[in-house]
Order: sequence, then C-alpha cells, then structure tokens
Amino acid sequence: MSERVVLAYSGGLDTSVAIGWIAEETGAEVVAVAIDCGQGGEDLDVVRQRALDCGAVEAVVADAKDEFATEYCVPALQANALYMDRYPLVSALSRPLIVKHLADAARYHNATMVAHGCTGKGNDQVRFEAGLAALFPELKVLAPVRDSGMTRDKAIAFAEEKGLPIDVTKKSPYSIDQNLFGRAVETGFLEDIWNGPIEDVYAYTDNPAEPREPDELVITFTAGVPTAIDGKELTPLQVIEEMNRRAGAQGVGRIDMVEDRLVGIKSREVYEAPGAIALIAAHQELENVTVERELARFKRGVDQRWGELVYDGLWFSPLKNALDGFIAEANKHVTGDIRMVLHGGRAVVTGRRSEASLYDYDLATYDTGDTFDQSLARGFIDIWSMPAKIASVRDRRQG
Amino acid sequence: MSERVVLAYSGGLDTSVAIGWIAEETGAEVVAVAIDCGQGGEDLDVVRQRALDCGAVEAVVADAKDEFATEYCVPALQANALYMDRYPLVSALSRPLIVKHLADAARYHNATMVAHGCTGKGNDQVRFEAGLAALFPELKVLAPVRDSGMTRDKAIAFAEEKGLPIDVTKKSPYSIDQNLFGRAVETGFLEDIWNGPIEDVYAYTDNPAEPREPDELVITFTAGVPTAIDGKELTPLQVIEEMNRRAGAQGVGRIDMVEDRLVGIKSREVYEAPGAIALIAAHQELENVTVERELARFKRGVDQRWGELVYDGLWFSPLKNALDGFIAEANKHVTGDIRMVLHGGRAVVTGRRSEASLYDYDLATYDTGDTFDQSLARGFIDIWSMPAKIASVRDRRQG
Amino acid sequence: MSERVVLAYSGGLDTSVAIGWIAEETGAEVVAVAIDCGQGGEDLDVVRQRALDCGAVEAVVADAKDEFATEYCVPALQANALYMDRYPLVSALSRPLIVKHLADAARYHNATMVAHGCTGKGNDQVRFEAGLAALFPELKVLAPVRDSGMTRDKAIAFAEEKGLPIDVTKKSPYSIDQNLFGRAVETGFLEDIWNGPIEDVYAYTDNPAEPREPDELVITFTAGVPTAIDGKELTPLQVIEEMNRRAGAQGVGRIDMVEDRLVGIKSREVYEAPGAIALIAAHQELENVTVERELARFKRGVDQRWGELVYDGLWFSPLKNALDGFIAEANKHVTGDIRMVLHGGRAVVTGRRSEASLYDYDLATYDTGDTFDQSLARGFIDIWSMPAKIASVRDRRQG
Amino acid sequence: MSERVVLAYSGGLDTSVAIGWIAEETGAEVVAVAIDCGQGGEDLDVVRQRALDCGAVEAVVADAKDEFATEYCVPALQANALYMDRYPLVSALSRPLIVKHLADAARYHNATMVAHGCTGKGNDQVRFEAGLAALFPELKVLAPVRDSGMTRDKAIAFAEEKGLPIDVTKKSPYSIDQNLFGRAVETGFLEDIWNGPIEDVYAYTDNPAEPREPDELVITFTAGVPTAIDGKELTPLQVIEEMNRRAGAQGVGRIDMVEDRLVGIKSREVYEAPGAIALIAAHQELENVTVERELARFKRGVDQRWGELVYDGLWFSPLKNALDGFIAEANKHVTGDIRMVLHGGRAVVTGRRSEASLYDYDLATYDTGDTFDQSLARGFIDIWSMPAKIASVRDRRQG
Repeated sequence: MSERVVLAYSGGLDTSVAIGWIAEETGAEVVAVAIDCGQGGEDLDVVRQRALDCGAVEAVVADAKDEFATEYCVPALQANALYMDRYPLVSALSRPLIVKHLADAARYHNATMVAHGCTGKGNDQVRFEAGLAALFPELKVLAPVRDSGMTRDKAIAFAEEKGLPIDVTKKSPYSIDQNLFGRAVETGFLEDIWNGPIEDVYAYTDNPAEPREPDELVITFTAGVPTAIDGKELTPLQVIEEMNRRAGAQGVGRIDMVEDRLVGIKSREVYEAPGAIALIAAHQELENVTVERELARFKRGVDQRWGELVYDGLWFSPLKNALDGFIAEANKHVTGDIRMVLHGGRAVVTGRRSEASLYDYDLATYDTGDTFDQSLARGFIDIWSMPAKIASVRDRRQG
Repeated sequence: MSERVVLAYSGGLDTSVAIGWIAEETGAEVVAVAIDCGQGGEDLDVVRQRALDCGAVEAVVADAKDEFATEYCVPALQANALYMDRYPLVSALSRPLIVKHLADAARYHNATMVAHGCTGKGNDQVRFEAGLAALFPELKVLAPVRDSGMTRDKAIAFAEEKGLPIDVTKKSPYSIDQNLFGRAVETGFLEDIWNGPIEDVYAYTDNPAEPREPDELVITFTAGVPTAIDGKELTPLQVIEEMNRRAGAQGVGRIDMVEDRLVGIKSREVYEAPGAIALIAAHQELENVTVERELARFKRGVDQRWGELVYDGLWFSPLKNALDGFIAEANKHVTGDIRMVLHGGRAVVTGRRSEASLYDYDLATYDTGDTFDQSLARGFIDIWSMPAKIASVRDRRQG
Repeated sequence: MSERVVLAYSGGLDTSVAIGWIAEETGAEVVAVAIDCGQGGEDLDVVRQRALDCGAVEAVVADAKDEFATEYCVPALQANALYMDRYPLVSALSRPLIVKHLADAARYHNATMVAHGCTGKGNDQVRFEAGLAALFPELKVLAPVRDSGMTRDKAIAFAEEKGLPIDVTKKSPYSIDQNLFGRAVETGFLEDIWNGPIEDVYAYTDNPAEPREPDELVITFTAGVPTAIDGKELTPLQVIEEMNRRAGAQGVGRIDMVEDRLVGIKSREVYEAPGAIALIAAHQELENVTVERELARFKRGVDQRWGELVYDGLWFSPLKNALDGFIAEANKHVTGDIRMVLHGGRAVVTGRRSEASLYDYDLATYDTGDTFDQSLARGFIDIWSMPAKIASVRDRRQG
Repeated sequence: MSERVVLAYSGGLDTSVAIGWIAEETGAEVVAVAIDCGQGGEDLDVVRQRALDCGAVEAVVADAKDEFATEYCVPALQANALYMDRYPLVSALSRPLIVKHLADAARYHNATMVAHGCTGKGNDQVRFEAGLAALFPELKVLAPVRDSGMTRDKAIAFAEEKGLPIDVTKKSPYSIDQNLFGRAVETGFLEDIWNGPIEDVYAYTDNPAEPREPDELVITFTAGVPTAIDGKELTPLQVIEEMNRRAGAQGVGRIDMVEDRLVGIKSREVYEAPGAIALIAAHQELENVTVERELARFKRGVDQRWGELVYDGLWFSPLKNALDGFIAEANKHVTGDIRMVLHGGRAVVTGRRSEASLYDYDLATYDTGDTFDQSLARGFIDIWSMPAKIASVRDRRQG
C-alpha cells in the first residue's frame, strides 16, 4: 500500500495543484483536509468534490466553526490578545485548529506525511510545522511552494496541463486570509508603507467615515466568556458572528500596521476584525471592574506573552498551558454586562454592571455616604514613599 | 521671623481659603505658588493678585508650559504611557512638575512647610507628598482638606466670614483637573458606572459623532520627540497644542474607564486627551517601523512599569531613572514621519517613512526583487519548535 | 455577654502580658490561639495552661505542622521561593497559616476583635492584618505593642504587678522567629551591617567550617512535591524535618543579608533554613531536567513575583491564586530523583533521573548515536539573528 | 588577488587543520586570528607561528585580557548575570569579543569570508554568526566542522597527510572551553546525567571538601566595578585574576547543571568560575545595601533577560544596548566595601559598608535612637491590603 500524505487544503489554486504535485513528487496518496473556521466562501461539499477531482484519494471536510470560537477565539479574548497591542491573532488562532484536524486525519488515514501550501517567509509555515511537531512529530512535512519550487506560474502551468477543475484566470491583486475572528490582506501597493489602504481592500467592515446611526448593545460575559447580547443567550460562535455583523457595519476593527514577523522581518499588514476588537474592548473594561489591581497589572505581561507565543506558533507548548492556568483563574469573576456603542469605527464602552464588581460606590463617592477613612492616607503615603525618599537623600548626599 | 508655608495654589475656592486657614492654624506666613501647565483659565496675574488679596505674603506664578511639554509630556510619549492601556497620565504628569516648583520656592523663601488642597482618597495627595519626600524631605506637609477638616461648606463659610474675593456661589457639578496633556472629569452621576457620560462633560473634544471633514497631517519625530507637523518645525509645546486643537476638533481622545487608584479603590474616570492619544498612536507606529523586535517586546513591559510608577506618584525615584535610561536608548532611532488621519474620534496612521526604518521592502515583498532566502526556514522552524516538541513527546509518554 | 478578642499567642512575655493588657484596655474577653508550625520549644499543653493562667477565657492550641508543610512550605518549594534570591520566606509563610487559624477561632468563639504582638516597623504586622482583612475583614485589629504603648519595660512591670506566671528575668539578646521551614535572628550587634554573625546566633545549623563526613542522599519529587528520601516514602513534613536535620548537620542554609522590608526600610537579617535551601536546590535542578525552556524562563519571573507577594503579606490575594495556577501547571511533570551531597555548608546536586526528563541523550551526545541534525543550524541562526542584523546595518547607516 | 578568509584560530587540532581545509575548499587565503581572553596555555607567539606553519598567510594574535575583563566581564557582573540562576556566561562572554576582533581583522585584511570551528549543535556557532551578522553582515561564514564534514577523524588524517606541526596523538577525554571568567567541561561520562563529576574534571578550583584555612578579604566596588581588594587598587583584570586564584583555592564556583541550549536541546554542563561566582555574590549584596527596593525588584527581570540575550548570542543587539542603559543607571551608587570569607566552596559575605548605603541604622534599630514612626503603620497596612480585601469580600459574596 502506498504512503499517504494529509494536505491542508483550502480549495484554491495552490493547494489544488499541490494534490497532484505531491503525488508526482512522492508517489504517495494525498488525503485533502479542508477545515471551515468561518472563512466563508464556497460550500464544503464543493471544496470536497474539487479535491477529489484534483486527484485526492480522500477528502475530509469539517465544520469547525464552533470549535474554533470556543477553543481558540474565547481564550484569545480572555487574554485580551493583541499582538503588538494591535492585532487580534486572526490567522495565528486558526492554524493550531487546522493542525489538530490534520493530525487527527493523519492518524485516521495512517498518513506518514503532511503538507501545507505556505511560503518560506511567513509566520504560518511556523505555526503549521511547530504545531505538527507537538501533536504528531513523526510526520514528515512537505511544503511544495517553499521547498520544491511550486511557484504560482508553475502551479498554473500544472493545472492547465492536467486539466484541473480550477479557474486559473481570475487573479486577485490581494493575498487574503480570513476566518471567523478576522481578515488579513496583503497586496503589492501596501508593501510601500507610505501608501494608505484604499476602501477596496476591506470586506468585513463598512467605511467608518460614512454617516449612519449608532448601534448600542449590551454584551454579557460569564467568567470571561461572552454568553449573551442584549439579553439573548448565544454561543461564542453566535456572539462573534453577530458582533462581526454589527461592529463591521459601523466600520469597527480596521488595523493598519508594520508588524514584526517571527521569521525576522518587518511586514506591512492590514487587518479587519470587527467582532474581535469590539469584544476585546468590552472584556478589558469588564476586567477593569472585576479584577483586582495587582492581578490586573501582572496579567498585562501574561497577556502579552500569551499573544507572542501564539503569534510565534507555540500554541501547543508547555508555557502556553501554564499561562492558560493563570488566565483562567484571572477570568473566574469576569462576569457581568457591558453596554457599548458601535459607531463611526469606534467601539466605546458606556456602562458596566456586575454582581462580581470590585467597584464600591461607597468607597469611591465624594458625596454623602463616603466610607473611605481618609485618616489612613498619611501613614500610607509616608511608608509608600520612604524607599524613594531615603534614596533621594542619599543621592543628594553623594552629589 | 514667622515660619513659612508654600502652598500649591490653583486660584480656586479651596486653595484660596487655605491661605487664611493655614495661617490661622499654624501662625505661619503663606507663600502661594501657582504653576501654569496649560490648564487655561484665568491670567496668571489675576491668580497672583487673588492670592495676595487672600492673605498670602508672597505669590509666585510661573508659566511652566514649555517645561511641562518637554520634561514631562515628551518622556510620557516616548514610553507610550497609558495607565491600564488607556489613560495618558494627565494629572500624574503635572504633579511632579508642580512639586519641583514648590520645592524650589520653599528653598527660595526659606519655608519649613508645604501645603496642598488634596483630599485623602485620591492619587494626587500621594504624588505631591511622595514627590516632596524625594525633593525636600525636611518640609512638613499640611493637607487642610484631608487632615484638618476644611470641607467645602466650611471653606465657603470661611470665605464669607473673611470677605475673601472669591465667588462662592457658582457651583459646578464637575470636579475637573486639566492641563496641556488632557483633562479629567469626575461628577456625581458618573459614580454610577452604568451611566454613560453626557456631551456636557467634555471641553477639549468635539462630539466625534458629528459629521465633518477628515483632517490629514504628517507628524515628524526626531529620536522619539515630536518636532514638526506638516513639515513645519515646532517645539513640543506647540506640537501638543496643535494636536489638541486638531484632534480635539475631530473628537479624538475621549476615555471612559474604571480605574485602579493607588489608594486601594476602583474609581470611574472620564478623560479627554486628544493630542496625547493621537501622538502616542503616531509614536507607537513609528516604533513599529524603527525598533527591533526583541527591544520592542521588552519595551512594552518597561513602558507599563513606567506608567504605573508615574501614576503611583514615584516620578522622582531610582527605578524611574533607570527606566528612563532604557527608554532613551530605545528611542534613539525613532525618527521619521507618520501620516495620520483624524476623523470621527479616530486617529489613524495611514503612512510612515523613515531614514531609520527597519522595514526592508526587498525582504518583505512577494514581488520580484525578493531577497529573503526561503531555504533558511526549515532549519529555523525545526530548531525553534524543538523544545515544545520534545516536551510534547514526553507528555504523551507520561500519559 | 462581653465582646471577645482572639489573640495570636506565642507563650512568651509579650503575648502573655497582652492577655491582661487587652482585657483591661477593652473590657473584652481574650481567647488565646497558639499554633504549632514547627517552632519547637514548649509543649502545647504548657502553653495552653499559661494562657489560661494569664487570664484567657479560652486557649486554643493546634498542631498545624502537617498543614504548614503541605499547604505553605510545598507551594513555596514549587515556586523556588527566595525573596531577593536568598531568603526562603520562613516567617512570611507561617503568618497566613496563623491568620487562618485566628479567623477560624474568631468565628467559632464569636470574636469581634483580633490581636497580635507585632511592632510597627516589621513585615509581620502587615502579614497578620492583610491576611485578616482578606479572611475576616469585619474583625477589629488590636496591636498593643504598636498602638497602645506596651513596651517591653511596661510589659515586665505589668507581669510583675499582676503576678503572671512568666519568667521576666531571662533576657535573650536575640529576637528570634522560627518554624519548620527555618529560623530568623535579629540582635543589636548585627544592626551594624559591617559586623559578621558569630557562631552563637545559630541553632538549626552546625558550623559548616568544621570537618565532618559528607552526607549523600536521594530526594524523590512527584509533581513538584517531595515524596521520599533515599527511597523511603515520607510526608512533606517528614521530608522537611529530615532535611533540616541532615542539611543542618552539614551547616547548609545559613543566610546573612540586607533586606528590603515592605515598610520601606532596609534591615539586616540572619536566617538559617537548612531543609528549605537544600530542597529548593534539588527542586530547581529537577525543573532544569523536566521543564521546557520557555516555560522555565517565564517561570522565573512568576516565582519572583510569588515570593514578593508572600513576603509583602498578600498570601490571600487574587494574584497569588492566579500565580498558583501557573505554578501548579508548571510542576505537573517535575517528577523524579535528585541525588545530592550535603557537606561543608553546601548542598550540591550530583545526579538526576526522571521518567519525565526532557534531556535527550541521543540529541545531546557528541558520541556515536547523535541524532541531532546539524544541517538545521544555519537556517536557524540566519533567521534568529536577522532582526539584530537589520538593526545593525541601520545603525551604521545612520552613523 | 585571492579572496581572504579570517579564521577564529585556537591553536588546536581543529582550527589548525581548518587553515588548509578552507584553503583547499575555497581557494582563498586564510588569515588566522587568535585572541587571548585569559584561556592560558601556550604563548601567543607559539600559536602565531603554528598558524603560519599550517599555511595561514597572516596570523593575528592579540592579548585582549584587559578588554575582556573591562568590556565583557564587568557588565556581566553589573547584571549579576547567571543563566538559569547558575551559569556566569563564561563562553558566551568571550564570543562577542572574538567576533569583534574577527570583524576588525576582516576589515583590515580585506576578507570576504570568516570561519569558525564550531559544531552544529552548540550555542557558540550562534554567538559567532549572530555577532558577525551584526558587525559585518557582508562576510560569508564558513563552518567546516559543521557544514563540510571536517570530523575529528578526517582532521587527524588531513594533519598527518599534510605533515602539519600538531600533535594528533594526545586525545583528551574532555572538551574544554576556558577563559578569564571561567571554564566549561564536557565529557562523555557526564552525558549520563545521573553520573556525578569526578575531581579530575576540575582545573580552576581545588576540592572544596579538603580541609584548609579560610581566606577573608575585602572587595571594593565603584559604581558596580570592582576596583580594589584589601584596599589595594586593581584593574578589573587583576581583580578577576586574584579572585580566581583565591576563590579557586577554596573550591568556590563549581557548577553542575542541566542547561537549556538555544538550539533547542538540554545538555549537561560542568563549569568552574571561582572569581565570577565570588564577585557576583559580593556585588549582589552591595546592591542589597545601595539599590532602592523597587529598582532592585525590577532589575532582577532585567538581569535575567540580559543573561538570556547574551547566552543566546545577541550581545550586539538593540535590546542589549537598552538593558545596558538601565543597568548602568542602576549601578551608579553601587559603591562600597564587601567583606567576604572564602572557605570550603563557599563565598560568604560577612560585612558591608558604603557611603552610598540606603541602610539607615536609626530607622532599622530596635534599640534606643529608633526614628521610625510606628504610628504610620496602620494607615499603610489598611490601604496596602484594601484591594485584596475588597476582592475577598466579593469572592465570599459570590460563593
């Protein structure tokens, strides 16, 4: 029996050609695996049939949208995950999900190899291969685009020669990756970092500059998980979908940045993540209300490291697991409602209420009813400032 | 000769009354010190005269706007200082400046005491007293509002009894602190954190929801210092003033948050800081272009700690000095232009260019001219993912 | 019925006098609570009787050594907790244990107040009161030594006047706090930080400089908990006791340092903690073998913060709980044997073996059997060093 | 004219053979560069002549011991640099020094290539190549042992065939790297991590278990730089040499650990660094006396990252420069004397004195003269513990 390769299959030109390319190159049978993590586009059955038509011996398709929302997007939300304080890790979150399905399929189909269509200068190759190294290290990795010269021109030639059922004529100027949590766009003219994005690059968000009515809503969180909008209980998937729709309609969540890739270069990236950006803003403010100060201060560093790890392809790693332990504990009381106005590209929190609130009106108020004992202040300040004071006296003494 | 007190004088009811209150309480002479750090309002000469009319033996006034911009706001910008990722430290920046002038005045006028009008539950009392402990620890601190029962009602009664030249009838529902870098508003109805702010609380920013034309501008930085707008060289003070005006006109920089005070409570704060928010966004993106990845990653933690220290009143402290050493080195190459669009409450970077850029088009491009050697990737990924892979194999072996 | 006070009772002069002192001062009944956390000395029944003889209405004594070892010392070990890289938190660990028992006793005996014998310049007052604030915030705290002038001279006079059954004549030059995890000594001549300790200050450790035979042993850990010595299964309490005995006999664990107190001053401290120091050394090395690199690197910062929090009296705090979540996850695989030689004040690891080891002989060896693929190195290094290289080229270009 | 290669030359078999090997492989002329960073052994002139005899067209030798001490070891001391809390970075410090001399020689001799003798699984290849990428990125790197199959057997055969003036018969079981700051030993039997080191592996330290008299000395630091021993002014090089001699004679500074290499594996390492370990202990304690608490706490994280960066080959990197800025500022007042006893493998601080001390006897003492105002404590503690208290009340309310 032939060896088998599981291929991360998107349905597009590159991975459709890769089916035959890999088969020729290795003599192995190709099992195509297509995962729906909310990228939209074609029906999964269409994608499945195309894989078979292109020569796959098996084509596995899976609707993993719920899994993606619950197991990947929600943890990112609990970590307020914004790489470089901006990017909500859209693609970086979907890669470990796909890797998990590839590893499962490889076990099921007795594959000895796994293939992806990434180039050699992006982050996704690392996320695929680092994830596979953790979940199924015995698999040999094939990367035809990167390692065996499957350029776009060669791919088109191959498709035409073999008569593959792919339209090779439609050429988008944009290189796009999108899923439930957002959308990334790269394109030639944006590689000049002085150029601004044009309206044409966006698909998840309407133009924030266009006049429209604001949209007000209330998001409910339970232990850091979004569980309802406007009082209606929803799954995480439903929350993110509705937030994408409503925040997207208000132009929320456009990001344009120069980014540090793991492979050592800076790149220019344009993203849209309306739901993610609005939900993170809401979650952060509910943390402000329900998380104790020292925990909140330390958590910022934990959140940053979590985001870096996931960006860097180390979702399946011991440090990620231990950070998850911290973050889960920190989210235990992040329960309550956030009222938010979406408008003109802004997602603005205007109210918060929580049974688990640490905000104490009686301590905070300057009106009658104030219970804060102001006589405590002097002792606190004198001891608080003592180390710096002693050092200052020393500094002057030393000149 | 009588002992002398230097009083941090604002010109308002509380500190005007404090002149006489302190004189009666201590038998000392009061030297009023009023510092202009861009809070606007009355002319300094008017303030000076009022202090004298209220019984001060001396009244020192100083226009410290340039000093504030250069020595306090610019370092905050270089640290991208946002307490809890939101608040640009407006009041926290002005207090050490005032402290410095108070200490200077105390030395000049041979004072043995210093007084402020803060309450006992806010941060500013700590910033005043911790700063004074560092700069002039021998001074005895008086805080009549906090420590000797000078409530608002008693202050009004005192003013009326003594015939002080203060209008005690106009009662604002808002408690406001403002300076060049922004404005803070507290008021009773916002102490219910479910209530949203109303348009009436804002003064530095126009309503972002109102339709208007966008404003595009180019900000030039030199080693992390903003030095020009639209090609016109400006001082830091002029940059911040112009950015306040232009970003404020677009509704940029409104902040509504629940905040962790140093004195142990959570409070609800509304701020406006149009110039600060726009400038920090511009500075961050120029850092993305000019600062190396590992430095940028570590700097986030340094920036956070810098903001916490300053918020917590430890501007004059050894750790602050050492963080400044780090931040100055990190800003050495943060030189270049940022093009930004101000509109509808958003300050959005649309272009960046820099002689010191680390973005390398030839490495980043996917077009012809690509110089990135993709054959390096496999070795990198295998070694990069090796520790997590070995751990993963162990984890499965251990079950 | 009278109000009741629970008193943290040690059996010594100060807290014996405090029974009557508090009763006179407040008119309340005093419930004495004495906790054995391994401090040795008198029998608990003797301590109990003395409390009653001094006027306590109830005297609660508890052998909490097992609880202390398991719930307080083991977590410290898993965090490699060394404040300022030196001090294994001896007293800081016992205070929350005592606080827990005080709060339990206060609930059981319907107390409204709680008392301790700490002074106003040490850390322990903070640990008591911060712990009580978390566990039983309604209790009013009494601190007669600090707040109502119960100096040593007055305590002796009070004891003589009331005929309390305490020997007030024996005056030790040393102020000592000790428990299962170690021993702290303060004394007048050590307040001159140029003076070295003399042999007389030590009780848990023999002189490391004396000639003796080395002691070799094997410590077994299971998920970061020490579970056996030389193959014999032991409880955590038994492990620490045996390590105290054997490491103490070799002079291991003496510490002499200038330390940063929470209350703002530096103090000079001498400690002995033979078991703690030897066990931490063993645990650290087993982590080196079983914990993945990135987790180990991040854990150092977590461990440091854990130690600071506990030193600073915040054992019962949200951040402590979240750090515990991280540390527990990180210790999951810290299972195996450490061979250690105790001798001449040194505790030196000489061997380690573990089913959960991440050390891979085949990858590490330079002998035949090497499975490390050296061809990976070049790609790794080129990408690893790329950001610094690009920055370096820029720096030279910029001059 | 031929192309030229600069070769990092040690005088040993591998790099002597590499001269001819590289010449044959590339047709280029080889310039051998040998740097004395305190590794001892042969005279530099002997090494120089051997290089020429082996076919080098030029042989550059340099005594860089002073430079190494001042520019590399002292900064490590100021950072208390201990990788994984144990290893004072011995080899990691010398590699950037050698790289700097290689780059200088390459410029001087118009070389286009640079060569080193490292294998592909160690850290040193990274340190060489990352350093060269930063200092002279245009150079092509040759690594004959790693990349062109120059195994030990082939090297011996080559030496014999060409009649090179090297003794190929003496075969040490040890692989050793040593310099002024310490010595690293690897050997086959230590690759079994359960085996303990034998006395034979050590050369810088005598057996700590042997009876001898203790050695007491006073080390003087000026701004974190060791400047005198026992009152005699010395250069950094002289200090380290004398400390190596005296601490080595007492068996101080032996290290046996499992270590995380940058290339992804764990390895077993045995080091001796008597001077480094004793000096770091002294420096740390002087920091305890002279550095303010918050600065000291933050500096631990900075020190750790500094050590990781240098271990990981990023000496010449922007983050390293910025950390240096922090560390220099933190060391500004680390001036004073440390009295230390060296004995039986221990380097124990017994006294410290400093004009820049922050230890204040009057604040610390429990004797008469105490100036600490204990009435401050209550206010401090209540506010210090307030956030955790409020959270604790919430937690109980929430159940």
